[in-house]
Amino acid sequence: MTDGDRIGTLAVLGLGLIGGSLAAALKARSQVGRVLGWGRSEASLARGAALGHIDDYSLDLAQVLTSADVVVIATPTLVTEKLLATLIDDWPAHAVITDVASVKGNLLDVVRARAGVEPPNLVLAHPIAGSERSGVDAARAELFVDHRVILTPTRATDPAALARVRGMWSGVGAEVVDMDVARHDAVLAATSHLPHALAYTLVNCLSKQDSQADIFRFAAGGFRDFTRIASSDPQMWHDISLANSAALLDAIDAFSAELAQLKRAIAARDGGRIMAQYTAAKASRDRFAQGEFAPAGCGSNRHEE
Amino acid sequence: MTDGDRIGTLAVLGLGLIGGSLAAALKARSQVGRVLGWGRSEASLARGAALGHIDDYSLDLAQVLTSADVVVIATPTLVTEKLLATLIDDWPAHAVITDVASVKGNLLDVVRARAGVEPPNLVLAHPIAGSERSGVDAARAELFVDHRVILTPTRATDPAALARVRGMWSGVGAEVVDMDVARHDAVLAATSHLPHALAYTLVNCLSKQDSQADIFRFAAGGFRDFTRIASSDPQMWHDISLANSAALLDAIDAFSAELAQLKRAIAARDGGRIMAQYTAAKASRDRFAQGEFAPAGCGSNRHEE
Repeated sequence: MTDGDRIGTLAVLGLGLIGGSLAAALKARSQVGRVLGWGRSEASLARGAALGHIDDYSLDLAQVLTSADVVVIATPTLVTEKLLATLIDDWPAHAVITDVASVKGNLLDVVRARAGVEPPNLVLAHPIAGSERSGVDAARAELFVDHRVILTPTRATDPAALARVRGMWSGVGAEVVDMDVARHDAVLAATSHLPHALAYTLVNCLSKQDSQADIFRFAAGGFRDFTRIASSDPQMWHDISLANSAALLDAIDAFSAELAQLKRAIAARDGGRIMAQYTAAKASRDRFAQGEFAPAGCGSNRHEE
Repeated sequence: MTDGDRIGTLAVLGLGLIGGSLAAALKARSQVGRVLGWGRSEASLARGAALGHIDDYSLDLAQVLTSADVVVIATPTLVTEKLLATLIDDWPAHAVITDVASVKGNLLDVVRARAGVEPPNLVLAHPIAGSERSGVDAARAELFVDHRVILTPTRATDPAALARVRGMWSGVGAEVVDMDVARHDAVLAATSHLPHALAYTLVNCLSKQDSQADIFRFAAGGFRDFTRIASSDPQMWHDISLANSAALLDAIDAFSAELAQLKRAIAARDGGRIMAQYTAAKASRDRFAQGEFAPAGCGSNRHEE
């Protein structure tokens, strides 16, 4: 990050775990002059100010936007969609606008539907970081260190705006990569949204059995790991499931086809095929576990930073 | 455990993680006089003797069986099935015979098919304990402490034989519960065999996508937890999938129906239904995580010990 990347005034719309952590991280590294908060919950904003993550706040959106050089929309997924739909009619052209939502295609859709083309100063972004905890009290300056942030620029994106958002994220320790919007949504559907849907589904499936108490009583460690993500915030995953419905439905279909194949092999007592499927899966999972795809070893992305 | 429960000579058939740990646990607590090992791998047997888990070993099955008071078959699932099929023709009536396999119905089936009725001195058992590691080198005397062991006696089971196996397991720190064979296989299919099949399937499903490298590169912690069990031993899960095929196929069907329901809700953009499903799942998973069904709070089972 060069000195020119330093942000004068940052506006954070929605002060939860991600917005609060980004504000704290930029302040901790002296990469921002002033941070203003806006949100629906004055309590969160006051708490963020008390924690020193933001310098000031307002419940008046227009007031916060006026003086901002960079605006980070850090609200829940479907709120981000609504906020962009509202903003587009009186678009803040003077600032760089970015977000942190887990799905990108729905945001581009809503902007294009209203404005024809996305504004050049809009840079959609997705930091892949989180915590079981939520809210500004869980915020911490180191949340993004060695985590990936995916930017999804389009042909309309202003290179200077893109560089500014890239600099902001790499400046707080993240590894920044660019990706096509549709590819982002497909990759995240497969690696994150589908597993959450499967974990919720498995728990519900077991809950409905008549021997529910036994079912959970005899569940072992594997079940515990497998269903940990079913303890995630339902509202967040409800939003993501709707925002990324097309890619998620595709992922569910691909999974269902694969499961049907395994089912046929078991029904036919085709030991060779079962063994081949399990062996291939273990090999892939072991390579993943050994960090073959981890950020540190991810040479092909490094040049994009 | 009363003094009368002490085992004179224990024979362990198959000296891996489970057999080795049981031998080590009984020895550590002075609950066995002598432990004899039998298996196909002399290296494992010699290693078990060197580690002090067993006192002696032989590759001659008949020789090991002759002097045993209790015989524990601790081989892989399908080997246990074959071993019982072999033993039943020249059944060791002088000892108590038990096992540690993850599926019970297939064992009862093979015995009944050959002998008409299961011998009274056969007590099928399933210790719900394991490790990512396998083999006798991973064996440890504390493996079963606070873990559950399910016994599946039938009407033919001799109460004295049942009491002996119950005493053996509670003597090494396990919580022992009884369960009907069919119920055992259904409960384990739901809580263990199905999750393993789903984890293997998810990893394979992602591996087949053209953007495989990206898929694994951007997988986050949730995916890591969810697919940890896909690193399990393929041979073990191949055996279990075949041995418990009927219950596993039922579990796959129930899961597929539940997933199809979620898919319909997403396709219909039925936010209320998605929210209801995720909220119910989180509530069940949180109760599980808080230990509502854990051994220590499991009052209804305590009287069975």
